[in-house]
Amino acid sequence: MAPPDDFVVTPYEVKGRIDYQRLREMFGTQDLTPELLARLHQVAGGDLPPLLSRGVYYSHRDLGLLLDQYQKGSPFFLYSGRGPSGPLHTSHLVSFDLCRWLQKTLGVSMYIQITDDEKFWARSGLTREQTAYWGMENLYDILALGFDPKRTHVFFDSKSIAALYPLAIRVARKIPYSTVKAVFGFEPSTNIGLVFYTALQTVPCFWPSWAEDRAVPCLIPCGIDQDPHFRVTRDIAESLGYPKPSLIHSQMLPGLLGENAMSTTGDREDNALFLNDSAATVDRKVRGAFTGGRATVEEQRRLGATPEICSVWALWRTRFAKDDQEFASVTRDCRSGALLCGECKGRVLERIHAFYATHAEARIKVQDWAESTIVTEAPKPI
Amino acid sequence: MAPPDDFVVTPYEVKGRIDYQRLREMFGTQDLTPELLARLHQVAGGDLPPLLSRGVYYSHRDLGLLLDQYQKGSPFFLYSGRGPSGPLHTSHLVSFDLCRWLQKTLGVSMYIQITDDEKFWARSGLTREQTAYWGMENLYDILALGFDPKRTHVFFDSKSIAALYPLAIRVARKIPYSTVKAVFGFEPSTNIGLVFYTALQTVPCFWPSWAEDRAVPCLIPCGIDQDPHFRVTRDIAESLGYPKPSLIHSQMLPGLLGENAMSTTGDREDNALFLNDSAATVDRKVRGAFTGGRATVEEQRRLGATPEICSVWALWRTRFAKDDQEFASVTRDCRSGALLCGECKGRVLERIHAFYATHAEARIKVQDWAESTIVTEAPKPI
Repeated sequence: MAPPDDFVVTPYEVKGRIDYQRLREMFGTQDLTPELLARLHQVAGGDLPPLLSRGVYYSHRDLGLLLDQYQKGSPFFLYSGRGPSGPLHTSHLVSFDLCRWLQKTLGVSMYIQITDDEKFWARSGLTREQTAYWGMENLYDILALGFDPKRTHVFFDSKSIAALYPLAIRVARKIPYSTVKAVFGFEPSTNIGLVFYTALQTVPCFWPSWAEDRAVPCLIPCGIDQDPHFRVTRDIAESLGYPKPSLIHSQMLPGLLGENAMSTTGDREDNALFLNDSAATVDRKVRGAFTGGRATVEEQRRLGATPEICSVWALWRTRFAKDDQEFASVTRDCRSGALLCGECKGRVLERIHAFYATHAEARIKVQDWAESTIVTEAPKPI
Repeated sequence: MAPPDDFVVTPYEVKGRIDYQRLREMFGTQDLTPELLARLHQVAGGDLPPLLSRGVYYSHRDLGLLLDQYQKGSPFFLYSGRGPSGPLHTSHLVSFDLCRWLQKTLGVSMYIQITDDEKFWARSGLTREQTAYWGMENLYDILALGFDPKRTHVFFDSKSIAALYPLAIRVARKIPYSTVKAVFGFEPSTNIGLVFYTALQTVPCFWPSWAEDRAVPCLIPCGIDQDPHFRVTRDIAESLGYPKPSLIHSQMLPGLLGENAMSTTGDREDNALFLNDSAATVDRKVRGAFTGGRATVEEQRRLGATPEICSVWALWRTRFAKDDQEFASVTRDCRSGALLCGECKGRVLERIHAFYATHAEARIKVQDWAESTIVTEAPKPI
């Protein structure tokens, strides 16, 4: 008998130490193979962003099919989203970083969904004013990563409902309660907003096809924990006459406190670097972060440290190493004991502060045009 | 042990021979007493419409409280709706007739909800094109009864969702799945649209209070079968800071085929008079209608007929007797055997044809302004 899984991953809960390969098998997704990465590399003109070259994205559904269609002249659009429960932290950028790179490299359209309704339904501690406020704040941060205003479209649920609802009506009829209960683990006490919600999260996958009256392929970069939402989407796509969205899944980044995922739910503010943290707070959090170091300097010099369990190494890996060469040298020096944790933290902090400064400037500029990206009208009445 | 109830009444099912007093007790609503009717009579300036004077409306929730507030200078608004599954039939007019009378007599505002989303979710045989089409057709028929364009506001769900959704988000968080399962008898196979729907049906009850930032009382005339929807509404009203809506409930009218309710679901077209029936069809349906008559003319002359079980008497009662005096004489002559069914049908047909002719003219005129009554914007963003 197989040992019971000691982790749980749903869109509403991440618990235990995740075995990512096992999770991929449980979810029934495909391995992001070196062959597929090589195809992406070729399509992108000989370039791959760190999130792909360093294995943060590790799983997919129908990415090969999407690339086939792209190479035959049928470009896809990107879809990602955010549940605005508070400020963004750096691990939230994983899907948007990949999207921005794909948009820049391939010139494709991007659809961003801000689920201020869902977060209100999912978190009883949040007010509507809060989810609406964080929705706009988060949107500024996302757009400031470098999205193209002309090719970026935002579904801000409470503001965009007229654009989403006609299609949501059709989607919702396809999804029985028993499906969402099984997929999301809903209880009798779950409110009917959250029960309905997956219909709205499905709509953007089909929206361009609906608007343009032709099959427009969709690629969704997301954390593997969000896969269940889109499994439901994929199951009903064909019966509605739309293509199944393709997905590319990332692992969850470890939190600064050594947690499995950079979640800050439940008073764990020090587990993540918020984009609105002050420089002093960022310093304090990184200096106190969990690492893969040894108990003493002497021991670490002798035995080396363990990057794979280190939350600071995860920062280098996902965003802050300037290239693969630097990332390789940080990893090697960590493992050999040449690079001690204090020095490593100091070096990564320089990069983080530089990013925060650039980001703050970009964030001010996007506020001029952010509102104009919000879609408020349906392309057709029904 | 009490005998098991041999009837079922929910918003989605009416089955068996209904014991209306027993149903009222099961639902926990209040009796529409002669004292309350006398108060209404007084408030309305010495007038009562047939639907009230002839007992079609027989039950209520908090009508006395509503009249107290009205007499203290706080006018209520009316709210009724229609699920557009096909053409309207005459029994659908019961709630709108009372609303029109109240609007005309008291000058109050009317909110009409057209639930083209809900009907699509509730009836797998209907397409979205059909529910949207019937939504507008039904709206023309309703407005043609004589509603005041300046005081009448329509929530046509698929067109009005931007106006409804911000409030629906708040309402939906208050309603757990277990509540709608218990109240509506939902199954695991029920789609998530229908599960969510009661939130949208609740919104109009609170909408004017939300828009005007003060407690605006609401009166809902509806069939007793719709009470469960608003029981949910009443349960959550205070926690959202809105007044509980008052209700006044009608009995279901018997169908022409002698059914308990004038439902035409499942190929029973001859059970009702559709407003788009031709004169010849109306003739045929009424001539073939179930009555309370006897097996032979001789027997009927001798023993009289039974108006209470007669579908034609129900037509006189609800709409087609020109006043209470005529209604009393039809009832008396039926019971005595003086009025035979053939003659009675001929007389009521004259009235029906006259109504259809007037209605057709009015219906053409409302099409000029019907669209302008549809509310498409929220009064505030959240």
